[in-house]
Amino acid sequence: MSGEFDLITHIRSRVALRPDVVLGIGDDAAVIDVPGGQQLVVTTDTLNAGVHFPRDTPVEAIGWKSLAVNLSDLASMGAQPAWCTLALSLPESSQAWLDAFLDGFLALAAQHQVCLVGGDTTRGPLSISVTAMGLVDSGGALRRDAACVGDDVWVTGTLGDASAALEAIVGGRETSAVMRDRLDRPTPRIAAGLRLRGLAHGCVDVSDGLFADLGHICSRSGVGAEIELSQLPASSALAGFDHALRWRHQATGGDDYELCFTVPAALRAEVRQALDLAETGVTRIGRIVAGQGVRALEPDGSPWQPQRSGYQHFA
Amino acid sequence: MSGEFDLITHIRSRVALRPDVVLGIGDDAAVIDVPGGQQLVVTTDTLNAGVHFPRDTPVEAIGWKSLAVNLSDLASMGAQPAWCTLALSLPESSQAWLDAFLDGFLALAAQHQVCLVGGDTTRGPLSISVTAMGLVDSGGALRRDAACVGDDVWVTGTLGDASAALEAIVGGRETSAVMRDRLDRPTPRIAAGLRLRGLAHGCVDVSDGLFADLGHICSRSGVGAEIELSQLPASSALAGFDHALRWRHQATGGDDYELCFTVPAALRAEVRQALDLAETGVTRIGRIVAGQGVRALEPDGSPWQPQRSGYQHFA
Repeated sequence: MSGEFDLITHIRSRVALRPDVVLGIGDDAAVIDVPGGQQLVVTTDTLNAGVHFPRDTPVEAIGWKSLAVNLSDLASMGAQPAWCTLALSLPESSQAWLDAFLDGFLALAAQHQVCLVGGDTTRGPLSISVTAMGLVDSGGALRRDAACVGDDVWVTGTLGDASAALEAIVGGRETSAVMRDRLDRPTPRIAAGLRLRGLAHGCVDVSDGLFADLGHICSRSGVGAEIELSQLPASSALAGFDHALRWRHQATGGDDYELCFTVPAALRAEVRQALDLAETGVTRIGRIVAGQGVRALEPDGSPWQPQRSGYQHFA
Repeated sequence: MSGEFDLITHIRSRVALRPDVVLGIGDDAAVIDVPGGQQLVVTTDTLNAGVHFPRDTPVEAIGWKSLAVNLSDLASMGAQPAWCTLALSLPESSQAWLDAFLDGFLALAAQHQVCLVGGDTTRGPLSISVTAMGLVDSGGALRRDAACVGDDVWVTGTLGDASAALEAIVGGRETSAVMRDRLDRPTPRIAAGLRLRGLAHGCVDVSDGLFADLGHICSRSGVGAEIELSQLPASSALAGFDHALRWRHQATGGDDYELCFTVPAALRAEVRQALDLAETGVTRIGRIVAGQGVRALEPDGSPWQPQRSGYQHFA
């Protein structure tokens, strides 16, 4: 593969189209039909080698994760994913690398009928920026700013595996395949987000860590939150960790890409039914209270101080 | 400014909203109203330091150019720009750098009422990926694949200044302020693109060089093109160069961000009137012919061989 245009031609040959994509890869821009009565939901996330994934991450997993983190943002809005663009900076041109990357990226895209409509390939340090677009019924998006005092706080799936895997890798230790897979191939909770429309007040995806992300709901909604550490859902792999370490990963580790959301306490049965229909596990972990900030309680009810409040670039 | 969330808060404080932006920066994704009868036009371009701009480029110009190259893609589709996202990788957090970047980025955004609706800031080598979104009346987008034999080939503005400036910089030579400004602060030809709807058959923006970009029109449309080198429009600064050097910059240099488009020969007066209304200069430089590829003719009618056919990453 000799140049940029060949890379683009190759990517184009592997992409599945959608009927609403009038013009996809190959022109100066894509042209898309947006159905009436829907709003467009747009998000962008970048993955840089060594920052957002360990340098030994399988290339296929880099492709999967670069789309997954963006679809997770759409999930937290209650949006149905539809289209994406890909801006890829590569140190060198390699069809083998590109094909492995596309294997992961397009496998996830196919699961959600997401069409890659355009992008850009440039030479530079490995960096992947994806913009994902989706649709919600007008006025139906889940937001960060709508949590209310009296809401329960819920989280999908389990927390902490990705953080535990990353810490092991950074420390040069072995990690379980299950944990490593959670770090490399997160599952965007699309079905859960769709089922939470009209039910959840506040919703966010857990990318920077539960406390940091629930903190965004609190600050945007003008409320506080109380979390019971003993209720935080753990995988069987993480359940074997000692409590202090497990809680740190679950409460402050990033990269879980579960949904954290708030729903009035009167609607607990409805939450369980909705998440059953989405075939996604769900756990009630606390409540929204008056005040501000996120407080965690140990099993005896005493306050817990996390060692750090979540991952921040430039912190 | 201590962290990523502060960077985002700062960016948000400087962004002008539009009424159709239901939810902008600050949630997991933006929510946007798309009017009925319109199609969404989407494009993504990345700028990497040292590849897409010289390392001594003023920071404000980096901001301007990173949006300009994307708006240029919307212009070549005949789209009205509306929204954008920004994925910014920075080696370190600096409010002074960010403010200078936003000065350029938001000045151009304000000229076209483009709202920055979301994005991402990460730590890494300096890299800027912008996704720009705009609107066209359904079915009205200008495309690369619609050029016809018998069309004239036209170009807006002048060609070659950016390439001449870059060559001088790379060679350590002085360049004129006018040429340097064309390289650093290109003008996306939005008004011209809008006026060309319903008139132009094929349209592309000249980012990789006239021959390469007109070549895209030819290959996508299944036609060839003949260009008269003596007709290529030059700034007064470039007009002083010797012919061979001038033609090389005009025909194969990149970064001009003019529009190159094709229109039936019967509509020359209409083209001039449309571009007058857009207050944009326009020059007829050749014609679409049967066959394939782009051929250039010297003033005596003999064929000209360019030394290179346009900028390609990974070439």
